[in-house]
Amino acid sequence: MALKKKPVNGMKDILPNEARIRDYVTGVIKNTYTAFGFSPIETPVMEDIDNLLGSKGGENEKLIFKVLKRGEKLNIPDATTEEEVVDFGMRYDLTVPLCRYYSCHENELVAPFKALQIGNVWRADRPQKGRYRQFTQCDIDIIGEPSNLAEKELILATGACIGRLGFSDFNIRINDRGILRSMVEASGFPLDKCDEVFITLDKMDKIGIEGVESELLEMGFSKDSVSKYLGLFKDIEEIFDFKEKINKLKEELTNFGVECHKYFDNVLEIAETVNAAKECDFNLIFDPTLVRGMGYYTGTIFEIEMPELSISCGGGGRYDNLVGAFLGKDVPACGFSIGFERIILLLLEKGYEVPGEDKKIAYLVEKGYPKEKLSDVFSEAAKLRKSGSTVLVTGMNKNKKFQKEQLEKEGYKEFKEFFNN
Amino acid sequence: MALKKKPVNGMKDILPNEARIRDYVTGVIKNTYTAFGFSPIETPVMEDIDNLLGSKGGENEKLIFKVLKRGEKLNIPDATTEEEVVDFGMRYDLTVPLCRYYSCHENELVAPFKALQIGNVWRADRPQKGRYRQFTQCDIDIIGEPSNLAEKELILATGACIGRLGFSDFNIRINDRGILRSMVEASGFPLDKCDEVFITLDKMDKIGIEGVESELLEMGFSKDSVSKYLGLFKDIEEIFDFKEKINKLKEELTNFGVECHKYFDNVLEIAETVNAAKECDFNLIFDPTLVRGMGYYTGTIFEIEMPELSISCGGGGRYDNLVGAFLGKDVPACGFSIGFERIILLLLEKGYEVPGEDKKIAYLVEKGYPKEKLSDVFSEAAKLRKSGSTVLVTGMNKNKKFQKEQLEKEGYKEFKEFFNN
Repeated sequence: MALKKKPVNGMKDILPNEARIRDYVTGVIKNTYTAFGFSPIETPVMEDIDNLLGSKGGENEKLIFKVLKRGEKLNIPDATTEEEVVDFGMRYDLTVPLCRYYSCHENELVAPFKALQIGNVWRADRPQKGRYRQFTQCDIDIIGEPSNLAEKELILATGACIGRLGFSDFNIRINDRGILRSMVEASGFPLDKCDEVFITLDKMDKIGIEGVESELLEMGFSKDSVSKYLGLFKDIEEIFDFKEKINKLKEELTNFGVECHKYFDNVLEIAETVNAAKECDFNLIFDPTLVRGMGYYTGTIFEIEMPELSISCGGGGRYDNLVGAFLGKDVPACGFSIGFERIILLLLEKGYEVPGEDKKIAYLVEKGYPKEKLSDVFSEAAKLRKSGSTVLVTGMNKNKKFQKEQLEKEGYKEFKEFFNN
Repeated sequence: MALKKKPVNGMKDILPNEARIRDYVTGVIKNTYTAFGFSPIETPVMEDIDNLLGSKGGENEKLIFKVLKRGEKLNIPDATTEEEVVDFGMRYDLTVPLCRYYSCHENELVAPFKALQIGNVWRADRPQKGRYRQFTQCDIDIIGEPSNLAEKELILATGACIGRLGFSDFNIRINDRGILRSMVEASGFPLDKCDEVFITLDKMDKIGIEGVESELLEMGFSKDSVSKYLGLFKDIEEIFDFKEKINKLKEELTNFGVECHKYFDNVLEIAETVNAAKECDFNLIFDPTLVRGMGYYTGTIFEIEMPELSISCGGGGRYDNLVGAFLGKDVPACGFSIGFERIILLLLEKGYEVPGEDKKIAYLVEKGYPKEKLSDVFSEAAKLRKSGSTVLVTGMNKNKKFQKEQLEKEGYKEFKEFFNN
């Protein structure tokens, strides 16, 4: 039988050394978040196709892997459209399933509900280097907490996770959609053009402030508005103290007659609590250029920035209308998603060694080793395992040197050989 | 937007209390098997549909969830068959992916290769109570070890897992396909009818020895053969000592002129090593009626039997031809699969409490609690977490009594309240 040896196009097999790191990272994340009172949940990898297609997923909806109907429901010869032959689809994120889960089980869940999900999602993207069609997402969400107690918990917990994974000196940038809107308002842009302005602002990292300026002008906004807008950013560019930066911008916007105190107070309150209670030493930075792409954010937004990477390593924010849209009533919600695959990539590049790898011992047993003595080998191995070591008992290969080299690559540091004599 | 609240037909959402148990069990299994030197691996949940359909999966092949082609490759109006519109399928077990993985990465893997896989599989079975279309399998396999060193390791490691999950007094039943065949041969059945005889023998639990007798006679086998065959089982029925039972049956078969020493020696050797080195006190039982359904087993077979359940809680055996069929060369292999979902069911029924649940504390913070004092609440929580407690910081609901009841169900044993005054 001719088997295709490679994994399906765009997805990857995970070799033992990476799998060990993934398991370790998953463990640290689970332990940290559950210590903060987040509850693990699981949903099926498939959702009803209508749930996926009607869920504000934007571009992602085009990338759904769809599942064929089965049995009598399937009639391929007569079908002309996808809708006729498909009933389920693979989830493309963990937020849609969470909303469905919450709406189904609301009465069985603690309120507010703090959910932890780590799971695979699938997107039929064009395969490209370093991006796969199956990848792991790691989300925490607090549903039902209207105050910024939620934001504080999410940032403290996620900061602790990243810290416990051995990262230090990382930044969590924070902003509020209300501040973004107030700046647009103060500059005299039409308020219904907010989203367009944000899309351009979001490119600041890549095209710089001049790039943003010319793009906004090209879009037909008035020179006066654009210059006022960018002036607001320039005025606080050189201020590094969180509170000072906040106060300066608040003052300017207030002078323009914009009512925006509560947004600044929100961000400042979050910063003060987080800085006082954080477990590891990350920097919380107020960044008025932070947009976060997703249209569904309504309030606070935040993003993890690693010194090693130019791109974000996770992020989140408040999305008070999303769960409500599903449920048909108002439900406040706020979430934080760790960029699991990027964390793994960083650790692999670092040559990260999973704790405990220093206690890996291999017992090599020669072929024909006396049966009656073999029990002692296994008993000795069992004893060592009890003291926390990994002990591999395995047959000795003819090419013992090569075998040992292979085992060394898997982290085995000590060998014991049992010869047949 | 009208969202369907329920999970897709036949699959289930996992609520926090069950998710915690699943996470805990997964952790114990991973820790135990990796301490035995098994390497975690992961494969995509989808495989090429041809790999799944051509892989000796028997009935399971009919239950594959199939994935629709995408983009230009898909032409529904002109299609008349499934093959034309489908390219991938959801895996229905972890063995097919393992064989593909091994054949793809053989040169990157330690030989012999000891693999650990815990993952979901999907079967489009008719939905029924307690059986779901997405469920977790947990397999260990040793590829490339021809001797019973493999069986010994598999049984010792799996016994240790089940023991560490708090089960005791369970049985692992063992047999060898060679013994099954020798008994058929000794009784004078045509040797090409082995599989038919085994299918009937496999029903012994349900229909008893009389049922097996009448079914074999109905199938047209000679009265003499059937009587000889069942006589062999009856003669050793009352013998409980492993070695004595083995020796008695071996002697009888030898008297019938059947060459079968090596099969009995194999099972006895495994038993002696396992009994000498086992970590917890399970019983290894020689059971000549044990068949295990899967046609691909070639040698030793084994099965976990829990006193609480009438059905098997896992099993495995040697399948020396399966990987080879994929790879196009001989590769010995042996595996053990824990019945993950049944273990979870047993623990849920027991009201199992995950270790550490006794240290869950909830801080309830009244609405409007002073911002400046909130940092202290979070700092105190952080300190307690460092000493190993779970500390939930959450808003206090209007109906505090109900909130506490809900939290108690989630395992919170201690409450501290922070009032706004």
